[in-house]
Amino acid sequence: MLSPSPNSSKKAFSRVALVGKYQADGMQERLKDLAELLTKQGCEVFVEASTASHLSLTGYPTKTVEEFAGAIDVAVVLGGDGTMLGIGRQLAGRNVPLIGINMGRLGYMTDIPIHNVQAVLPQMIAGEYEADARTLLDAVVLRNGKVINRALALNDVVVNRSGISGMVELAVRVNGSFMYNQRSDGLIVSTPTGSTAYALSAGGPILHPRVAGILLAPIAPHSLSNRPIVLPQDIALSIEVVDGREVIVNFDMQSQTDLQSGDTIEVRQSEKTITLLHPRDHSDYKTLREKLHWNEYPSTF
Amino acid sequence: MLSPSPNSSKKAFSRVALVGKYQADGMQERLKDLAELLTKQGCEVFVEASTASHLSLTGYPTKTVEEFAGAIDVAVVLGGDGTMLGIGRQLAGRNVPLIGINMGRLGYMTDIPIHNVQAVLPQMIAGEYEADARTLLDAVVLRNGKVINRALALNDVVVNRSGISGMVELAVRVNGSFMYNQRSDGLIVSTPTGSTAYALSAGGPILHPRVAGILLAPIAPHSLSNRPIVLPQDIALSIEVVDGREVIVNFDMQSQTDLQSGDTIEVRQSEKTITLLHPRDHSDYKTLREKLHWNEYPSTF
Amino acid sequence: MLSPSPNSSKKAFSRVALVGKYQADGMQERLKDLAELLTKQGCEVFVEASTASHLSLTGYPTKTVEEFAGAIDVAVVLGGDGTMLGIGRQLAGRNVPLIGINMGRLGYMTDIPIHNVQAVLPQMIAGEYEADARTLLDAVVLRNGKVINRALALNDVVVNRSGISGMVELAVRVNGSFMYNQRSDGLIVSTPTGSTAYALSAGGPILHPRVAGILLAPIAPHSLSNRPIVLPQDIALSIEVVDGREVIVNFDMQSQTDLQSGDTIEVRQSEKTITLLHPRDHSDYKTLREKLHWNEYPSTF
Amino acid sequence: MLSPSPNSSKKAFSRVALVGKYQADGMQERLKDLAELLTKQGCEVFVEASTASHLSLTGYPTKTVEEFAGAIDVAVVLGGDGTMLGIGRQLAGRNVPLIGINMGRLGYMTDIPIHNVQAVLPQMIAGEYEADARTLLDAVVLRNGKVINRALALNDVVVNRSGISGMVELAVRVNGSFMYNQRSDGLIVSTPTGSTAYALSAGGPILHPRVAGILLAPIAPHSLSNRPIVLPQDIALSIEVVDGREVIVNFDMQSQTDLQSGDTIEVRQSEKTITLLHPRDHSDYKTLREKLHWNEYPSTF
Repeated sequence: MLSPSPNSSKKAFSRVALVGKYQADGMQERLKDLAELLTKQGCEVFVEASTASHLSLTGYPTKTVEEFAGAIDVAVVLGGDGTMLGIGRQLAGRNVPLIGINMGRLGYMTDIPIHNVQAVLPQMIAGEYEADARTLLDAVVLRNGKVINRALALNDVVVNRSGISGMVELAVRVNGSFMYNQRSDGLIVSTPTGSTAYALSAGGPILHPRVAGILLAPIAPHSLSNRPIVLPQDIALSIEVVDGREVIVNFDMQSQTDLQSGDTIEVRQSEKTITLLHPRDHSDYKTLREKLHWNEYPSTF
Repeated sequence: MLSPSPNSSKKAFSRVALVGKYQADGMQERLKDLAELLTKQGCEVFVEASTASHLSLTGYPTKTVEEFAGAIDVAVVLGGDGTMLGIGRQLAGRNVPLIGINMGRLGYMTDIPIHNVQAVLPQMIAGEYEADARTLLDAVVLRNGKVINRALALNDVVVNRSGISGMVELAVRVNGSFMYNQRSDGLIVSTPTGSTAYALSAGGPILHPRVAGILLAPIAPHSLSNRPIVLPQDIALSIEVVDGREVIVNFDMQSQTDLQSGDTIEVRQSEKTITLLHPRDHSDYKTLREKLHWNEYPSTF
Repeated sequence: MLSPSPNSSKKAFSRVALVGKYQADGMQERLKDLAELLTKQGCEVFVEASTASHLSLTGYPTKTVEEFAGAIDVAVVLGGDGTMLGIGRQLAGRNVPLIGINMGRLGYMTDIPIHNVQAVLPQMIAGEYEADARTLLDAVVLRNGKVINRALALNDVVVNRSGISGMVELAVRVNGSFMYNQRSDGLIVSTPTGSTAYALSAGGPILHPRVAGILLAPIAPHSLSNRPIVLPQDIALSIEVVDGREVIVNFDMQSQTDLQSGDTIEVRQSEKTITLLHPRDHSDYKTLREKLHWNEYPSTF
Repeated sequence: MLSPSPNSSKKAFSRVALVGKYQADGMQERLKDLAELLTKQGCEVFVEASTASHLSLTGYPTKTVEEFAGAIDVAVVLGGDGTMLGIGRQLAGRNVPLIGINMGRLGYMTDIPIHNVQAVLPQMIAGEYEADARTLLDAVVLRNGKVINRALALNDVVVNRSGISGMVELAVRVNGSFMYNQRSDGLIVSTPTGSTAYALSAGGPILHPRVAGILLAPIAPHSLSNRPIVLPQDIALSIEVVDGREVIVNFDMQSQTDLQSGDTIEVRQSEKTITLLHPRDHSDYKTLREKLHWNEYPSTF
């Protein structure tokens, strides 16, 4: 009389890595629970090395994010959108999809509440998921014709002035054609993923993740008609610092370069993507409704 | 000894139709000049029937816009963006490209100033042009499950309240998924072409004509977080009138239908397109700079 | 040994009128409870005539709103901001302050939740309140130099196009000086009270009730630099309909006049005010935080 | 037979100081012309000390701006709004009105074009002017209860993050009442004068100079409903830095203080004002029309 071994459960992913925002309360316990759940389902469970060491989480093999590619089939991330952003940038193009779990406060990318994880995660591991490929920006910073930095961004590439200075003046070109000289606090170049982040605060539109476009959202532009612009995804964008003191470019607010007048930032869509996995019943609009306090139900006037 | 006849000039288009905004001052003379210019270049020139009759323009064969398809290789339109909009909607999918000429005030679609036409038009007829395909929206109005109207829009499909009533409440769905109930003055569904028209006044972003997206721009929404949204071009959008008196849907502000509570407007991207032709040196950004008073040159702070 | 009769309770207001939004569920019972509460406190209780007849509320003398002046010391209104708006316009300048009670959904003017009323109302009747005087607009509609309508507005005077037409063009003058010609969906002239109503949806700022100013908020203006403007309260504003079909002016969305090209609306601040009474611990900012989902507490990034 | 000496010309102002933006082309010559013009009219002409020394302008007595009070009846400023701003802050409360002359590019405060100055200035000196009193903000920066800086601002007091950091979180209180915690790039506290400067770029409304109000305009706020707010001029505003790295407060972008978490900026309207003088035919709206590209004339649709 044979009962099926856990290993024989139907599953789309065998090797699962767990990544946690280790500063969050109760993270160690949550990760242990998840590791057990996945082990029961027959998965080989790894804990991301830095997460394991900060939380003294033993009993599972560890891997650094750099080691994920080829060794991990899916990464389960516990934390907020910031955690996802950091992991996502590192895994771009590595063919390791991400599942995002929030600890109570819904995120745009961490769309599964921790209290649903026992019900939802096994189904996703079994193949019941929706894949959602996200584009990244590839930015190069040039000074006197030489590359001084290069970085990927999942949300945005932001050129802006520091607090001390007045406006920055930027010359923007698209595929070599002059677009405008913009005087402002700065310019946000955003992916659809980033359109609900900083660009939204700056007055930008929301771009559905599947829109093949790059968003330019000026920050407090001097000219009132310098409105947000959506460009096709295949363009080559160039932003030249014409004038401004203490100007900085940052990538997902996670790394940055100090700029000088004459420096140019060239931005294109990266060939790399990252893939987010959602439960079958996922709705981008539900997340937007909840996060933006949209009216959910008809109401009397 | 043979000199080449005018007919033997190099040309990409042989049969050219002229369309004019007949109310504009000096239109008759302008059209005559253009007809002569084109005849000299060896083109067969037709005048759009309504233009010819209003302006008493004789000496050239006429064709109605309905007769253009198959009989006309290119239509040259003198007027403003409104004139182009009307002709464009009629020629959608008919394989008759448009050249837009303005009478002094630059348009987004009528990008050739009349004073440049002698220099520019012969080159374009000779094949020196850039083609710019524009998408249209295909909208169906349903009442109790029955189609009560269907129309194309090159700019936008606009659902809005009339002046007398308070807000309208609309339930918006994308591919069958509920997005939100929106209380507002109305909702603009816009093509990239329409993004510089009414949608811009309502706070929408500018979409480059090549962006594969559909823009939703709410008009004075009750909820401050009901921001403009760009959706992929392949979606099926449904807008249901939940509540509101004297609600109307219009198509490019050129035709309209009165709506009742419960009516639904279904909007998709049309399979038809229209093609605009621009001179070789055309820049969308130059037009935007000029029309929106963007800063053109670096300036001191 | 004498115990004080209820009649001898300390009270700032003796003659109290009750007004209810009679369509709301449970209104009859709520009003009866309030009438009893006030009677116990020694007040003479009246029920507004229309409220009484719609709810078949007997046992208390009735008065029409027109009869309040001189006969009523304070009016207690149950309903929403719309109910307050209607009563407020009628009582302008009549020296009858208003107390606004909401049935569950907080209003800007109906700031006392029904579940707090037993605790709060007796204190207010006893004199523990904050008075909050609100300004009104006085609008005159002129055609060929003759007055064709005149109305007060507590929120706003709105000139706008109806759904069928394109833009309206308005010429705006301040104290006889030309300000601009504005092409738009319309123009909202708003009091500070109205700044959280329609004007906010149209992109206007919030004006504290004590700001001595009149707000002009254009609706979807053609020119992106036609921004909201705050003018001093003592100005004389004139809005001329230059062009536009089916243009309408409305006053608090409660009455309206159809306009023709050439008609002029003259707007000034009224000499009349209405006074709202709030509990001692009232905070305008608390209401704004709750209604606009502002962050109330420090939060981690 | 006596003709009146120039000295006997009618004049409202006898002692006139000239101030110039010395970096501007042709400034020396312009100032000499003005000095001659004023001398002919019988004025006693002084040149501001720093202007005189930078331009090697001799032949007229000099005074530092600090020496103007009591010794100068009116200061004539050549330059842009930035020049006026610097002089205006120094002369606040000193009873020296300012006349602003622009070198070709119209300013909000420098409203007289240099080419009109020969015609206009003598009339103004003769008493044909409109006085326009402008309010200033008085800001105090507190750390651990001690004042670490105090400054006046004619345009605005701006608390903002520097480029390197993420958002800043500010707790805002009005007259001791908590208003909100705001996460953003920063907060602009603006006078009506400043409403057409940085606050306008950040989405604020235009305040007429005579509006008795203080404008709060958040810069790229995280919460979409954190809209600009106009408060009465008599309030006491307190802004506490709750969280944020490298936060700075600046005053008219001309001086600044680095802030730490826990620091508080207290802002009130100053008791001091400065007075601008305009020609009789001055129109604030004309300046706005020209600077903001408003439609000036009726136009066909």
